[in-house]
Amino acid sequence: MCQLLGMNCNTPTDIVFSFTGFATRGGLTDEHKDGWGIAFFEGRGARLFVDHLPAVSSPVAELIKRYPIKSENVIAHIRKATQGEVNLENCHPFVRECWGQYWVFAHNGDLKEFNPVLNGQFLPVGSTDSERAFCYLLQSMRAEFGDQPPTTGQVARFLQEKCRDIAAHGTFNMMLSNGEALFTHCSTKLHYVVRQHPFPVANLSDQELRVDFSEVTTPSDKVAVIVTEPLTTNECWTQFGSGEFKVFVKGDVLMPEQWQ
Amino acid sequence: MCQLLGMNCNTPTDIVFSFTGFATRGGLTDEHKDGWGIAFFEGRGARLFVDHLPAVSSPVAELIKRYPIKSENVIAHIRKATQGEVNLENCHPFVRECWGQYWVFAHNGDLKEFNPVLNGQFLPVGSTDSERAFCYLLQSMRAEFGDQPPTTGQVARFLQEKCRDIAAHGTFNMMLSNGEALFTHCSTKLHYVVRQHPFPVANLSDQELRVDFSEVTTPSDKVAVIVTEPLTTNECWTQFGSGEFKVFVKGDVLMPEQWQ
Repeated sequence: MCQLLGMNCNTPTDIVFSFTGFATRGGLTDEHKDGWGIAFFEGRGARLFVDHLPAVSSPVAELIKRYPIKSENVIAHIRKATQGEVNLENCHPFVRECWGQYWVFAHNGDLKEFNPVLNGQFLPVGSTDSERAFCYLLQSMRAEFGDQPPTTGQVARFLQEKCRDIAAHGTFNMMLSNGEALFTHCSTKLHYVVRQHPFPVANLSDQELRVDFSEVTTPSDKVAVIVTEPLTTNECWTQFGSGEFKVFVKGDVLMPEQWQ
Repeated sequence: MCQLLGMNCNTPTDIVFSFTGFATRGGLTDEHKDGWGIAFFEGRGARLFVDHLPAVSSPVAELIKRYPIKSENVIAHIRKATQGEVNLENCHPFVRECWGQYWVFAHNGDLKEFNPVLNGQFLPVGSTDSERAFCYLLQSMRAEFGDQPPTTGQVARFLQEKCRDIAAHGTFNMMLSNGEALFTHCSTKLHYVVRQHPFPVANLSDQELRVDFSEVTTPSDKVAVIVTEPLTTNECWTQFGSGEFKVFVKGDVLMPEQWQ
């Protein structure tokens, strides 16, 4: 199984602290050493860094830990291969353009007998069940909404149902973002925390590192971090229920009645 | 105007030497300081690094110069903004998936009154004429070839004509690759060299650096480098004619009679 990390904020924030702990699991404190990747939205643009080397020894991961790229939406993934070889085209996150926006997707889990008919609009480049699911989700959204880009609420309602269908094929913990919202679905394991004023001093669980967020934030900042296993020992992480679908916008969890 | 750099080889080769000279033009020996980017194919996968900082001072460019990523097809670009703001979504190269392959595109030049009708299959995320041209090329190829991926020769014949049409709107020096071939069109300025046995000692023109390629290659290696302005002072660069379209496969220029 793989691990996922997502961040959604109301102001561009760097993910160096959280990524440092997370990357440690890519071959050191945990066994997810079959490649890794991270995507950052910056405005409408996106940067994707992927590497088939273990995150713990990748020169690209080293750069991410030292170069504080500020972003409002980030998705990262460390891989332990279950389906598909260890190579670059099978590293998450995956990126496609739809409605003139980049969409970024990562998945943790394993899908059995999941072979949806793909009409060619979005096709996998690699051989993972994950990329197939991503292409299927985008194709389904295009079929549902046509040429008119849907609102965040429309996407949320649609994805919630689609994720439930896909999860019937196995484990489908996933993160998807278009740079505005971060959509998440949990089959088995996902946790989140919203960091906001008063900001705590946080201790990483995977290595000895602590940061006083109050020194690097302003009182109005709001940062949601979503991850497979909690990253810190002294923050209050909320566990997703099985089958739960959550939408994060500007560092907040949107309740279903806010899905507009 | 921007500058382009491409590489196409018969064996995975690192571009550190050529990129080092090229990146120097991103703010030091030349004025192309409005962002830069580089895409590497590795197998079917692709890595894209983009940054809105000048290449000469970008930590990401620093990584590329130190981390020898080996690739058979590379496209790089340093930008001097003519159309579109300086931000990440306007940095070349651009990437899209088509027929389950990644396609990478970069453009140097300026197109006037170029507003093709885009049907929504491929839409620009940023605001450059370049990304619009890229989306138009992919859409046109999909319309021409349908669901069946075309051969390199079919793409070459089709693109040659389309590039001629687009170039009627201004300057269209471009590079496009699907990881198998590197397609290039020259309106005003493009040069290439094929490095092969016996390999020379090459001197960079932009900074004091020389490399003896015979020490880092095998006798069967063949590496085509295509660039706006020659990168070395002691190699024999061939200048493209205005309106010339060339296809590179495995380090060779394919003559039109070889376009199959």
